[in-house]
Amino acid sequence: MINLDSLGDIKDFDQGEVLTSIRRLPEQVADAWKQVTDGEVPAACRLAKNVVVSGMGGSALGARIADSLLTDKARSPIEIFTEYRLPDYVNQETLVIASSYSGNTAETLTAAGEAINRGAIVYGVTTGGELARLLSQKNIPYYLIDAKENPSGKPRLGIGYSIGAILAVLARCGFINLLDSEVAEAVEEAKKFVKAFGPTVPKEKNPAKELAETLYTKIPVLVASEHLFGVAHAFKNQLNETAKTFACLFDLPEADHHLLEGLGYPEAAKAFLHFLFFESGVYFGEVKRRYSLTQEVVGKQGVSFTNYHLTAYRKLPQIFEVLILGSFVSFYLALLHEVDPAQIPWVDYFKAKL
Amino acid sequence: MINLDSLGDIKDFDQGEVLTSIRRLPEQVADAWKQVTDGEVPAACRLAKNVVVSGMGGSALGARIADSLLTDKARSPIEIFTEYRLPDYVNQETLVIASSYSGNTAETLTAAGEAINRGAIVYGVTTGGELARLLSQKNIPYYLIDAKENPSGKPRLGIGYSIGAILAVLARCGFINLLDSEVAEAVEEAKKFVKAFGPTVPKEKNPAKELAETLYTKIPVLVASEHLFGVAHAFKNQLNETAKTFACLFDLPEADHHLLEGLGYPEAAKAFLHFLFFESGVYFGEVKRRYSLTQEVVGKQGVSFTNYHLTAYRKLPQIFEVLILGSFVSFYLALLHEVDPAQIPWVDYFKAKL
Repeated sequence: MINLDSLGDIKDFDQGEVLTSIRRLPEQVADAWKQVTDGEVPAACRLAKNVVVSGMGGSALGARIADSLLTDKARSPIEIFTEYRLPDYVNQETLVIASSYSGNTAETLTAAGEAINRGAIVYGVTTGGELARLLSQKNIPYYLIDAKENPSGKPRLGIGYSIGAILAVLARCGFINLLDSEVAEAVEEAKKFVKAFGPTVPKEKNPAKELAETLYTKIPVLVASEHLFGVAHAFKNQLNETAKTFACLFDLPEADHHLLEGLGYPEAAKAFLHFLFFESGVYFGEVKRRYSLTQEVVGKQGVSFTNYHLTAYRKLPQIFEVLILGSFVSFYLALLHEVDPAQIPWVDYFKAKL
Repeated sequence: MINLDSLGDIKDFDQGEVLTSIRRLPEQVADAWKQVTDGEVPAACRLAKNVVVSGMGGSALGARIADSLLTDKARSPIEIFTEYRLPDYVNQETLVIASSYSGNTAETLTAAGEAINRGAIVYGVTTGGELARLLSQKNIPYYLIDAKENPSGKPRLGIGYSIGAILAVLARCGFINLLDSEVAEAVEEAKKFVKAFGPTVPKEKNPAKELAETLYTKIPVLVASEHLFGVAHAFKNQLNETAKTFACLFDLPEADHHLLEGLGYPEAAKAFLHFLFFESGVYFGEVKRRYSLTQEVVGKQGVSFTNYHLTAYRKLPQIFEVLILGSFVSFYLALLHEVDPAQIPWVDYFKAKL
């Protein structure tokens, strides 16, 4: 097993610039926020009655994060669709944001074409590809990501662009109130987490390294609520793609109504489960109380868990804290398994055969 | 281990009338559809611009099923909230459906009070409790479930009422087109599945018994798409509550973008995973192609799976097929583990301590 405190070991396994991309997540957010704030958005977007974001995998994560942050402050329903089709209600009064990092995601291209046909108010977020060609041809505004802060080239590691862009377009179109200064402060806090979880901080002081070692032989079962649910989804996907590790995600209070009962069988598999709770001081009061009680019930049934108590105070910085924690935990876990954190051979195999 | 073909064994373990409630799921749907179709709904509901359903656990499942059925034919966004709070956009133009089987669910009561305060168009679905008292006092119409077809008294086994009621109120309010005759035909088909999966049909001809035996030592990983995603959620919850079994749920095409990569570790846990795919002939063409290819990739990584190909032809009957299959599989799996399928001691413990 490699030593997570050995910078040489880390460099040997990280041939794809994953570490550099993780470190630059805050800069990605800042860059996207600025570009979209200064760029063109659809003139009619302020009149939209609802918002649909179409994106898959890494390209949907920015929207999930924005959506769970915004539940309590958006003026219209915002729905994320990870399918080929759009919901039937999409029409001239819907803002459709087509998000595809590569610009070549089949589902999103189909949905974008459908949105254009229905006369929806369309905006795009992409590094190029077919999506950029389609939108250019139709004179539809989009944010062309200049991905210099994501040298790995992997969509899931360019998620900062997607988060910054979607927050910015929603703010520009009047769906949320979010100030330049709030984003700038959150980006500065995010940079502190990049340092705190980074490879030069030794194991005993580094929660990301510690968590990676805890999860080494485990199936991570993530539990989050409210504004942290979307970013916990990103954490789970990174565990899959970067660490090649199976993982599940649940939300409280909902999981208290069924999952607590689901820890009996299979008995021999219980030793593999490890619950990871994301506890926040800004959750709704009743939800906060549920965290300790849920942990008690999980523990009483002989299932191990970690409670990660968020250290940032406000919602957006907490989201970045989980994002950066998840990115580093997945990275370290890949190294412990001695696999390349950049490559996704099965997803590539699948796409080639499709 | 008990013999699933022994009616005596089954009766010994099922002291809580679970089997009777499962058998009457079709009658629950029919009864709720009729009562809500003939009853009072809010006069203004046809003018609503969007719909929010508030419900937890078993009481949210009807809405999830309706929502995933309706994605492609609803005239407005329909969102399900399983939290204490309502989204900020809820106002006088929102239809809020408060669904709580017991009528005493803390989250739903809080959300219903908030909806009333904001002047939303409110409707309720409940067997009584605080929710019935609150709505009666405010002269707000609701469907008072007369739960004679659910002798177990468990909300998850009264899910037919919730499905029938939510479909009916959405149809009454003009959000979906659904005819009496379509519902009646689907209910008749559902009755056939009750027979086909029931205890008198022996193992070798009974897919529900066969699946329960397959899953006996496994963590079920359910995979579904489109109209079947909501009911797969119900299947997962029943595995937790009825069979006390841990389970996860994923949707295609989304899972192809990350989960395929997450089957490497922990290596020793892979033997516990068993994927259960719900393949439907009415999925979108590209989605159908993904099922066989996803199964190939899962199999190549040494993970076992079952492909359940839906036998009903249309969407609503397929939803009932999965609902009844899941109810019976969970029931048989509880018996194999020799646990009472009715009791949910940990959820009860949790609620008592909250």
